[in-house]
Amino acid sequence: MTKSTLIEQLNWRYATKKMDPSKSVPQEKLDTIIEAIRMAPTSSGTQPFEVVVVTNKAAREKIQKAAGDQGQITEGSHLLVFAAWDNYTSNRIDEVVDLNVAARGDLPMLHAYYDNLKSNYVPRDAEVNYAHAARQAYIALGVALVAAAEQEVDSTPMEGFDPAQVDDILGLKERGLRSVVLLPLGYRDESGDWLLPMGKVRKSRDTIVTEVN
Amino acid sequence: MTKSTLIEQLNWRYATKKMDPSKSVPQEKLDTIIEAIRMAPTSSGTQPFEVVVVTNKAAREKIQKAAGDQGQITEGSHLLVFAAWDNYTSNRIDEVVDLNVAARGDLPMLHAYYDNLKSNYVPRDAEVNYAHAARQAYIALGVALVAAAEQEVDSTPMEGFDPAQVDDILGLKERGLRSVVLLPLGYRDESGDWLLPMGKVRKSRDTIVTEVN
Repeated sequence: MTKSTLIEQLNWRYATKKMDPSKSVPQEKLDTIIEAIRMAPTSSGTQPFEVVVVTNKAAREKIQKAAGDQGQITEGSHLLVFAAWDNYTSNRIDEVVDLNVAARGDLPMLHAYYDNLKSNYVPRDAEVNYAHAARQAYIALGVALVAAAEQEVDSTPMEGFDPAQVDDILGLKERGLRSVVLLPLGYRDESGDWLLPMGKVRKSRDTIVTEVN
Repeated sequence: MTKSTLIEQLNWRYATKKMDPSKSVPQEKLDTIIEAIRMAPTSSGTQPFEVVVVTNKAAREKIQKAAGDQGQITEGSHLLVFAAWDNYTSNRIDEVVDLNVAARGDLPMLHAYYDNLKSNYVPRDAEVNYAHAARQAYIALGVALVAAAEQEVDSTPMEGFDPAQVDDILGLKERGLRSVVLLPLGYRDESGDWLLPMGKVRKSRDTIVTEVN
């Protein structure tokens, strides 16, 4: 293996179980994490999700209740809510086309590409499209976890919540969005987190990798 | 924003459209990319996917045919196939428990946690479980894209393929796996890739981020 800062970061990070509520993530570190999410690649460049950054205490308290009372949601200083498009629509794809035209010029192949995409996506069941959009949000989640570690910010990816309730608390449904995954950001409580002293558990390379040579 | 090597890497990388078949990814760089995938976090630590590393030319030629003839699959030196579990089963979760016990000790809370997980996951529809497993593979995909960029290796995430055909070519179904996403690794063809000189297209921060303060 080559020397890798990324591997060090992946070993440093862990799903923080208890955060120190007296510490807050500085704005410039939050901005870097968000920039990493913004630059994360997505299928056909559609970026079919949004991120809601929740600092409001009352909103986070409500979300915590909808998430099995996981304390990191209010112990951390920021909560990122990844919310995927509920469907692919012509309008949404047209906005992506406009952005491409603005950056790369009004190229025929660009229009042909997205016309084809529209004819594939728009007639599909909304649930299929949402599932596809949600996967793209997970790419960004992976990148966000690395970004937080690079900034020495702790984070806890959470799927254990009631999406309908979170959508309701944040008014996501009206915006055509569905909450997919939560990511509280903050700082580990060094003495209070039972998980911190425990070893990381991962399968062996042989368990997850096969080769076809 | 803080200074961030990750942001630089995300700007360096792009979905390489043409790779130089005369260049090969060195084994130690491949090992680092695989190690990053292995260390990527997953829901409840189940790591519910495997990665098939395909270098065999004939197998890659077949996969290329099942993927709209995208040339990077054979122009690159390695093809990573992310394949998610087709279902969560008691046996699969028990193996995760065994690994946890080996690393952290035979803790009652550990058994309680995974017993609860089993009672939630195992009765669910296989399709729901596969969709959940596939999302975890996308976290690892995000991490792999960063890992490749850190190693200055080019990569092209691909969803445009026939999963049933790829499963058949690699014998994945018999192993309880379903192909989710392809990632050819190699080196950009500096003169031949039409996408390389084009500017990166991303939405503005304001388009994808809202704040609840």
